Amino acid sequence: MKKMNMVVAQSGGPSMVINQSLVGAVAEARKSPRIGKILGARHGILGILGGDYVDLRKQSAKKLAAIAATPSSALGSCRRKPDAADCRAIFEAFRKLDVGYFFYIGGNDSADAARIVAEEAEKEGYPLTVYHIPKTIDNDLRSCDHTPGFGSAARFVACAIKGDDLDNRALGGVKIDVIMGRDAGFLTAASALARVREDDGPHLIYLPEVPFSEDGFVRDVKAAMKKYGRCVCAVSEGIRGRDGVPIGAKLGSGERDSHGNVQMSGTGALGDALARVLKEKAKIARVRADTFGYLQRSFPGVASETDSREAFAAGQCAVRAALKGELSKGTIAILRAKGRKYQAAFAPRPIAEAAKYTRSVPKEFIARNGHDVTGAFIEYARPLVGALPATGTF
Amino acid sequence: MKKMNMVVAQSGGPSMVINQSLVGAVAEARKSPRIGKILGARHGILGILGGDYVDLRKQSAKKLAAIAATPSSALGSCRRKPDAADCRAIFEAFRKLDVGYFFYIGGNDSADAARIVAEEAEKEGYPLTVYHIPKTIDNDLRSCDHTPGFGSAARFVACAIKGDDLDNRALGGVKIDVIMGRDAGFLTAASALARVREDDGPHLIYLPEVPFSEDGFVRDVKAAMKKYGRCVCAVSEGIRGRDGVPIGAKLGSGERDSHGNVQMSGTGALGDALARVLKEKAKIARVRADTFGYLQRSFPGVASETDSREAFAAGQCAVRAALKGELSKGTIAILRAKGRKYQAAFAPRPIAEAAKYTRSVPKEFIARNGHDVTGAFIEYARPLVGALPATGTF
Repeated sequence: MKKMNMVVAQSGGPSMVINQSLVGAVAEARKSPRIGKILGARHGILGILGGDYVDLRKQSAKKLAAIAATPSSALGSCRRKPDAADCRAIFEAFRKLDVGYFFYIGGNDSADAARIVAEEAEKEGYPLTVYHIPKTIDNDLRSCDHTPGFGSAARFVACAIKGDDLDNRALGGVKIDVIMGRDAGFLTAASALARVREDDGPHLIYLPEVPFSEDGFVRDVKAAMKKYGRCVCAVSEGIRGRDGVPIGAKLGSGERDSHGNVQMSGTGALGDALARVLKEKAKIARVRADTFGYLQRSFPGVASETDSREAFAAGQCAVRAALKGELSKGTIAILRAKGRKYQAAFAPRPIAEAAKYTRSVPKEFIARNGHDVTGAFIEYARPLVGALPATGTF
Repeated sequence: MKKMNMVVAQSGGPSMVINQSLVGAVAEARKSPRIGKILGARHGILGILGGDYVDLRKQSAKKLAAIAATPSSALGSCRRKPDAADCRAIFEAFRKLDVGYFFYIGGNDSADAARIVAEEAEKEGYPLTVYHIPKTIDNDLRSCDHTPGFGSAARFVACAIKGDDLDNRALGGVKIDVIMGRDAGFLTAASALARVREDDGPHLIYLPEVPFSEDGFVRDVKAAMKKYGRCVCAVSEGIRGRDGVPIGAKLGSGERDSHGNVQMSGTGALGDALARVLKEKAKIARVRADTFGYLQRSFPGVASETDSREAFAAGQCAVRAALKGELSKGTIAILRAKGRKYQAAFAPRPIAEAAKYTRSVPKEFIARNGHDVTGAFIEYARPLVGALPATGTF
């Protein structure tokens, strides 16, 4: 078979382990005599359009190991949805560079971008194998049992809530913590992993999957205050009322990216609004709100070991699948082997399965009261996150 | 000498290592035949007033070791400034329990509370040795070269900024990170420890010690965007204009504690306001703001080793000094030994030196341009924080 060059790039929101996938793909590609140049495009497809590449074959093993362990997207990222003109420019660039393989690491929007590139290539008759490598802290790809990036972000959230619950224990009152997750509440649900003792927070967990009402919130908090004398709330940034419109989006700037997503992270507006509601309607004196923000996806030194290992393996698997050539446009599904001991399996699947549409927290993970998670969720999430730092209380 | 009982308590904002000081004091007290009961009052002086104690002599070594490594105040905290009536109630309680030693772990307000108790005891003729054990993430005690709690919070801030700078590198635009520190900018200054390469963020650092102007801010950010193509700003929650009034306090709820401190943490209002300024006045499309909030003092697993060790030693030292009896009301000063290798020294000092008044970031630590720190600050802070997780970039 003819030797071809490959391009790999990163897209969408960074994660703590997206560089593991990059380095996994590079490591696998280096093993194959059928891959020539290994080019990393900077800032996703923008780097392809602008001819801005890192020669990944030239990087030392030491450098690549350091990159793998580094949070955020080392090649840079973008949120660009390619149109037909972009695609033509991409193929022109690929033709000049003799590129036969294209790997795009990202979430559902990035999978959709890769799908568009792959379909346009077919239309144009440009021979290209395209693989999406899954990444999203939101854990909302329909193709995966769980996604690389989730375990580490969930670990940050669980640690943060654990510490914050200890802080709330010391000074009392209500603490509201706003957690990432535009449409899916998996990351907010992971706050429950912080609990060890019965009275540990979070005492209330609000997901976008359950319609949120101010009155219900006030009632829940009052009940928790009565029971525990304090209350820690884990609130998804994507909570929405019965009208389905995210409350945070109503408070925010209305800014949208090219995939149509409204900006919700990077502002403390939702937490502050909820704190005001409690002060006014529940007459609680000490109410504080923090928004965990970008630290959830970028804080160094907190990555889950399982997540790091799987993200690397997903990158390797994509390159192996592309070389095998069964699918011209694929994604890597991460599945969970049945059995008592946790084990992940990786399988190439048609790219459409990861693209565009997302999945929500399933019903069996949401407690009946609508403000907690079930034991089934804890069982699902614990192996992805790993053991948290031990703490003691009197 | 007569055997007396002791009471120890924690007050003010928690830190990641305040329990090290508690356990250090307990460990030292257990060694002395002159100390009988070792009682931990829950929620500071409120526990004394309410008779709510933990018997610290009964705790296992394993339990105490776990508590020491746990963030937040394991005994609970309060922000109560004792008045004469409180003090009379305290002495009545102490008399019944035969308490001769009182240790109060906290910041300047807690030192002041301990000073009040000590002075009222003298007036009443109640024989009591009172020691304040320093703790504050703000690093603003005039009696100390640096305070227990600061190194760990600074470590969190430096790690957070390091990760967030990598995130900003990937997606561009301006990122504003609001950092704790009501009056002193030490913690915000510590963001500079995140830098390795010349173009690493934070690119701008705003401390409460330098008057803040919106126009200057817009100008600085525009210049940084021109130079780096992106900009990470570390902003103290306590920044204030020429009128001396904190900008965050103007935006906030106006809530005050019994020491007269305005609430500034636990809200994203300042970051959001600064983001709006940049969007409107500098016409920058992507501006995000995060407020690090309570994670800075409570996140488990991030404590600085030096800080942990010194916090423990400060607790030990207070008990030793109290038993020695040179001062009837003291605090523990943490000094830095001269010489190339970092070394801390501990010394008992009159309690008034830690009480009430705070210190600011000294001039030699602030860069001439007013939005950065000097090499002298980096040299000062680095040993307190320790090495950060290694990261790699292309």
